[in-house]
Amino acid sequence: MKEETWKTAITKVEPNKLLLRGYQIDELMGNITFAQAVFLVIKGELPDEKEARMIDAMLVSSVDHGVTPPSCLSARTIASAGAPLSAALAGGILAISRHHGGAIEDSMRVLHEAVKRKKEMNKSEEEMASIMIREYKMRNKRLPGFGHRIHTKDPRTLKLFQIAFDLGIAGEYVKMGKALETAIEKGSGKPLPINVDGAIAALLCEMNFPPELANAFFILARIPGLVAHVYEEQTRMKPMRHINSKDHEYDGHPERKI
Amino acid sequence: MKEETWKTAITKVEPNKLLLRGYQIDELMGNITFAQAVFLVIKGELPDEKEARMIDAMLVSSVDHGVTPPSCLSARTIASAGAPLSAALAGGILAISRHHGGAIEDSMRVLHEAVKRKKEMNKSEEEMASIMIREYKMRNKRLPGFGHRIHTKDPRTLKLFQIAFDLGIAGEYVKMGKALETAIEKGSGKPLPINVDGAIAALLCEMNFPPELANAFFILARIPGLVAHVYEEQTRMKPMRHINSKDHEYDGHPERKI
Amino acid sequence: MKEETWKTAITKVEPNKLLLRGYQIDELMGNITFAQAVFLVIKGELPDEKEARMIDAMLVSSVDHGVTPPSCLSARTIASAGAPLSAALAGGILAISRHHGGAIEDSMRVLHEAVKRKKEMNKSEEEMASIMIREYKMRNKRLPGFGHRIHTKDPRTLKLFQIAFDLGIAGEYVKMGKALETAIEKGSGKPLPINVDGAIAALLCEMNFPPELANAFFILARIPGLVAHVYEEQTRMKPMRHINSKDHEYDGHPERKI
Amino acid sequence: MKEETWKTAITKVEPNKLLLRGYQIDELMGNITFAQAVFLVIKGELPDEKEARMIDAMLVSSVDHGVTPPSCLSARTIASAGAPLSAALAGGILAISRHHGGAIEDSMRVLHEAVKRKKEMNKSEEEMASIMIREYKMRNKRLPGFGHRIHTKDPRTLKLFQIAFDLGIAGEYVKMGKALETAIEKGSGKPLPINVDGAIAALLCEMNFPPELANAFFILARIPGLVAHVYEEQTRMKPMRHINSKDHEYDGHPERKI
Repeated sequence: MKEETWKTAITKVEPNKLLLRGYQIDELMGNITFAQAVFLVIKGELPDEKEARMIDAMLVSSVDHGVTPPSCLSARTIASAGAPLSAALAGGILAISRHHGGAIEDSMRVLHEAVKRKKEMNKSEEEMASIMIREYKMRNKRLPGFGHRIHTKDPRTLKLFQIAFDLGIAGEYVKMGKALETAIEKGSGKPLPINVDGAIAALLCEMNFPPELANAFFILARIPGLVAHVYEEQTRMKPMRHINSKDHEYDGHPERKI
Repeated sequence: MKEETWKTAITKVEPNKLLLRGYQIDELMGNITFAQAVFLVIKGELPDEKEARMIDAMLVSSVDHGVTPPSCLSARTIASAGAPLSAALAGGILAISRHHGGAIEDSMRVLHEAVKRKKEMNKSEEEMASIMIREYKMRNKRLPGFGHRIHTKDPRTLKLFQIAFDLGIAGEYVKMGKALETAIEKGSGKPLPINVDGAIAALLCEMNFPPELANAFFILARIPGLVAHVYEEQTRMKPMRHINSKDHEYDGHPERKI
Repeated sequence: MKEETWKTAITKVEPNKLLLRGYQIDELMGNITFAQAVFLVIKGELPDEKEARMIDAMLVSSVDHGVTPPSCLSARTIASAGAPLSAALAGGILAISRHHGGAIEDSMRVLHEAVKRKKEMNKSEEEMASIMIREYKMRNKRLPGFGHRIHTKDPRTLKLFQIAFDLGIAGEYVKMGKALETAIEKGSGKPLPINVDGAIAALLCEMNFPPELANAFFILARIPGLVAHVYEEQTRMKPMRHINSKDHEYDGHPERKI
Repeated sequence: MKEETWKTAITKVEPNKLLLRGYQIDELMGNITFAQAVFLVIKGELPDEKEARMIDAMLVSSVDHGVTPPSCLSARTIASAGAPLSAALAGGILAISRHHGGAIEDSMRVLHEAVKRKKEMNKSEEEMASIMIREYKMRNKRLPGFGHRIHTKDPRTLKLFQIAFDLGIAGEYVKMGKALETAIEKGSGKPLPINVDGAIAALLCEMNFPPELANAFFILARIPGLVAHVYEEQTRMKPMRHINSKDHEYDGHPERKI
């Protein structure tokens, strides 16, 4: 049976030479940040200075969110049973799914649809947002990327948008996100602000990433947090303990400034 | 049954406020890189400027190594069967194990032992290295962190050490690594240079990370590469294809300069 | 915050007493087969004698299919990197997905739809099958559960249907499957027989399992095969070898009779 | 580079013919139970009638143990986040590790050592057991396979041994397990009976399975239970709920007889 040679465009490996998307890896090392390398390997091109800073802020925003997310609880549960770090991390990642992180992809699709229809129908952001909110209401569906079970004014969202505006990255998708936020409040009388998933979704749209890769950024960003939780579980807790996701207490470093 | 309140020192979550190791997350965003956040969440303290640059270079060095590593092949195989990104990444991570990435941890333990015994026995690096090489030879064991199946002069290793020297991070563990390299060559007559695992091991020792976390850095660094491979598999290849790890060809961007 | 007591209907655990779906586990042990226990724990009721034999035959049919399925390749790749058995099995299961095993669920949905519409439209199996084949053709879609990349007369399918007929389990879903098979051949002039996925789908429909659980039976059935492959990889092969899914050879026990 | 043809002894796949360890799979179907197929594919030979019944009882004994084991909690946590069945099962399996299921392997190693030393030292079971209990006490280590956090007289253990005695499978390993149980009670004055892990360990030793495969049987046996839990989570619970491993209640079928 004839073997088929298959093609790959990511990394060229030769003895003593590694080209990552065309760049010698040893030229990249020391010259670009990890966030820039993430952008390069996934997208195929280096980010400009603004995109690099935006990606860094996005990844930092999602590094950890305490012990209650399912990814943290499954990673800790697996670690508590005595499994190695890689197994616990794999189990954590498997929980990053439709209801946990998944809103980023859903929200990107909503923003893409809204911006596309706005252009086709020659509407303003406000008009298009009202139309979509009415449609979601009629189908009795919740718009992904709005509202948070804990935060009403999520500091991560505010800062992400501020950075995006300062860098000049905020464009039609951020505008549409804001218009949807306003339309939701008008429609229901209650605010339901864009959450961190929605904000990241808008920024990934601005930087032209496909929705299929939304999860990739969240998973990558959360790995260090999961590592910290697994290590804390392994070094500080008894094995096979009952892990109650509600009855915990923070006893780490008190609030401080950089 | 009385519920036991358990403690965590990583992230404090309050409505509209998130403290990561004591720092407000919105103060960190825009002010530190993702690599600095990785260091902070895992170690509990922000890195100094030198450590930050070292971590960035380390993570960049391990972003991808083409299609042949088992982590890439298992992630692609799972993606080829139609599984979602998170499942493919989890499967990729599960392959980062004893023989793939695991040498970093093993090498950290060797370096810790060598440096400790050197002090206790009041020996020079060269003497201690010779003793250990003889011991490994007698037990017919291979020293982890030396030699590579493809590279004889791995560009990543050379650059990592160069950066470490420039930053003043290279200390007793790097010295010991170099001494072991020299002792191996003297002992066998053939060079078997420190590989990228060994270099990362020495640098993680210098920055005082525990060996148990060695794998964490490799897994984190490799996620973006795995994302790129899974996405390439999903968008460019037919499902359920035979994936032959040998018969592939690079057709990406030709060599270029930053 | 008030804790909510949640309910579970599977197993009651008391000191020195275990009720599985109401039955004392020590009364089940020795009295029922594992296949009967599988049916009980998943469905909530013990199978009758015929269902028990059908489930056993279904599980036996899917125990292994050699080294080429993605579940086997990902499990072996992970094992080859030095990971423990549970990690390799988890990686194998993650490959049981849309294109590998997933046809069972898809096929169940097709059969449910076909049988439901047949009744609503008051058609014969043959008429309904022709309608659906035409619809799939027009939408340029392949009907799941028909054709196999290796087998034209899959011995597993033939035997599954024979057992189902002998036991009196074959009913409207098996009839519909057969009608679809005939309609495909009539429509295209070429036979594309029901494959083992399609056969298992029809039998799970007959036994009233929900399509959401189709994958469960395939995963369960394949675990022993994956265990054998991982163990063979660990005990017979060198670590970190190139695993070419095409260039292998069977050297096991020659053909024999029970 | 020359491709190396690799060998496998598990399944021979030819068009329209499948040999599992030498037997035509369609001859096995309908003639052997799934438990017999498990034994065949893993060991290479069909079990005799007694071994077949023993394996069935072992697998039935471990089908489920309610909601508190880490494998169940991680599978449910992942399912609750919206992941597909295969991801939740993979996450469940990853928790079957050192402290959860792992005692079977550890216990097999203890029994192998004890029986081997008994023969070498020409001691009785009782003498050998006393020696080992003293050694474990001196090293301040717990003997794996004894005691249970819930059960003092585990009905599964009692039934497994009863079946093993009835079938004539109980031999030197079961005797040694019992001798260790007696020696523990003598040594400490308190009973710490063999638990279900210890019982399964003894029986796997009697049937000549290697300790490396201990986990395989537990994982296989627990899959149906995990499937039931994941399905219950998906169909009965709200997504993203807090899963408190302590505050649950059984509301399934009341106690009944076969």
